Amino acid sequence: MEGISLEELQLAARNHGMPLEALRYPVTPIGLHYLLTHYDVPDVAPDGWRLAIGGLELSLDDLRARSVAEHTVTMECAGNGRARLEPRPVSQPWLLEAVGTARWRGTPLAPLLAEAGIPDGTVEVLFTGLDRGIEGGDEQAFQRALPLDEATRDEVLLAYEMNGAPLPPQHGFPLRLVVPGWYGMTNVKWLSRIEFLAEPFSGYQQSWSYRVRQSEDEVGEPLQRMQPRSLLVPPGIPEFMTRDRTVAAGEVLLEGRAWSGLAPVASVEVSDDGASTWSAATLEPAGEPWAWRGFSYRWEAKPGEHVLCSRARDEAGNEQPVEPPWNLGGYANNAVQAVRVTVTP
Amino acid sequence: MEGISLEELQLAARNHGMPLEALRYPVTPIGLHYLLTHYDVPDVAPDGWRLAIGGLELSLDDLRARSVAEHTVTMECAGNGRARLEPRPVSQPWLLEAVGTARWRGTPLAPLLAEAGIPDGTVEVLFTGLDRGIEGGDEQAFQRALPLDEATRDEVLLAYEMNGAPLPPQHGFPLRLVVPGWYGMTNVKWLSRIEFLAEPFSGYQQSWSYRVRQSEDEVGEPLQRMQPRSLLVPPGIPEFMTRDRTVAAGEVLLEGRAWSGLAPVASVEVSDDGASTWSAATLEPAGEPWAWRGFSYRWEAKPGEHVLCSRARDEAGNEQPVEPPWNLGGYANNAVQAVRVTVTP
Repeated sequence: MEGISLEELQLAARNHGMPLEALRYPVTPIGLHYLLTHYDVPDVAPDGWRLAIGGLELSLDDLRARSVAEHTVTMECAGNGRARLEPRPVSQPWLLEAVGTARWRGTPLAPLLAEAGIPDGTVEVLFTGLDRGIEGGDEQAFQRALPLDEATRDEVLLAYEMNGAPLPPQHGFPLRLVVPGWYGMTNVKWLSRIEFLAEPFSGYQQSWSYRVRQSEDEVGEPLQRMQPRSLLVPPGIPEFMTRDRTVAAGEVLLEGRAWSGLAPVASVEVSDDGASTWSAATLEPAGEPWAWRGFSYRWEAKPGEHVLCSRARDEAGNEQPVEPPWNLGGYANNAVQAVRVTVTP
Repeated sequence: MEGISLEELQLAARNHGMPLEALRYPVTPIGLHYLLTHYDVPDVAPDGWRLAIGGLELSLDDLRARSVAEHTVTMECAGNGRARLEPRPVSQPWLLEAVGTARWRGTPLAPLLAEAGIPDGTVEVLFTGLDRGIEGGDEQAFQRALPLDEATRDEVLLAYEMNGAPLPPQHGFPLRLVVPGWYGMTNVKWLSRIEFLAEPFSGYQQSWSYRVRQSEDEVGEPLQRMQPRSLLVPPGIPEFMTRDRTVAAGEVLLEGRAWSGLAPVASVEVSDDGASTWSAATLEPAGEPWAWRGFSYRWEAKPGEHVLCSRARDEAGNEQPVEPPWNLGGYANNAVQAVRVTVTP
């Protein structure tokens, strides 16, 4: 790997992944959930804050007085895996760990849109956050749009609680969008404004970033739903610097979690020889539809060096590749994880 | 800067700093406080957990039934600033942000040590965590010792709450040591055992790591209390990749926080020309003795490029250097921060 630059390191020091041992928790504790902040975490005083939506202006109390829904949702950054690509696209250098699962509680979006009045000819709904910065040379607030038919799905929430507590500042206090199944950038934090658009949104985060393409000349395809991925809890104990693992020979229960935003997880396989041969893992019973699904595999660990991998397939037939799929922005690299393990006699 | 390696990036993706805009909070929200985990976050079931201390075995309920104390404590990693050194010592590559302040609530250590019975001839007290890994080629639990006179100071706590809630897993659930004023590694997490030593502890984290020395041949000096440091909340808005700042010309209130584990903060100065000239900042009233202290400075921002710096001095006369002090492990680099700002007309 070519060395990470100071600018990439600055991002890696601010943003953070989920340490993979935290895959043990079905709901990720606050502080272990991955976090990516494009600009700064804004300082929002809840008393003065209002959400503008069409002609409505709503306070946090107004939103809390509405119907309540809660979903357990696995959320992954679209850039997860970027730093595993060669050549490496330069941005936040995620390896594997930009994921987490939370219980998001709030009010469903669709009834609010209806109450605000969806104008005829609306094609997209635009969400604007309070976080401001400069990107591509232009000052901007973070903005993302959803097609109207996606914005009005039942499971789309305006969330004011995470894991049973008010949103922490870094996760969007006082209100964020949660779109189960979609990559993280969709879930606009520090929401201030929702607007109806008669034309597709062409802002920076929609038409330039978050598109799969091979060169800047291409328009590319927008990133939307999460590709299937599985991750193993690294077994045994780590070496501090290399993070390579050591376990004692014998039966080792390998555990992990798998998800896909495209369809339910259908199967997970495990390899102990670096993706040459595969064996079926046991899936835990399916839980909530937007949450990751646990799996396990009883591994007969024999002394020597091993590379553990896992591979998820979803019911739509999407499967994790062994080789990383390269693209210009370094998005959606769901290639299989490789965990180096030394088994001691 | 020479490029960061894959191994350093793996650490940077797991561990995380405090984004500097979070300096706005006098007490850092959970999830924004810096975090360094040497090995893995262990999975501790509170029911079966006991603290062994001399001949005593105490449950979490036993500890909660004892006298209660709470301190607001600024904690900084001894490796903060490591990645700013040239040549760069290879370990967790912190830039500036490995710090945070929390309210730690628990029971004072000294009465427990007395109850357990401090044997004659005790020189140090050894703290062992439940986190295990390999470092320097040897399997070990994380262990650190304190001189007896430091371990029996009034302010030293066994903490079971952080910011009013049970310790999160990543901060040491169910119990951690908190030694106000000392660098982070002192504050052993996931405590399982406290022992009395008649000889100084010679374990890896005491005699090899966390020592200031110029070469491996030297024994070096152990790292103990935090050197003075101050950090500014970066003003204005950031560019996504460079994190350089843009503000509009006019009066800008610069704010930040300063601390020292050696003595109370005596003064902070601010520079807008890259540490060539300095002006006195205004200190906020002193708060709790182990917490950072706020400061502010009314800056007349003139159009052009500026480099903002701040410099703290403590009552013992220790002052932040402008040039980083190099040592083999990359510890205690408290050189002044440099914030690049473009002021627009």
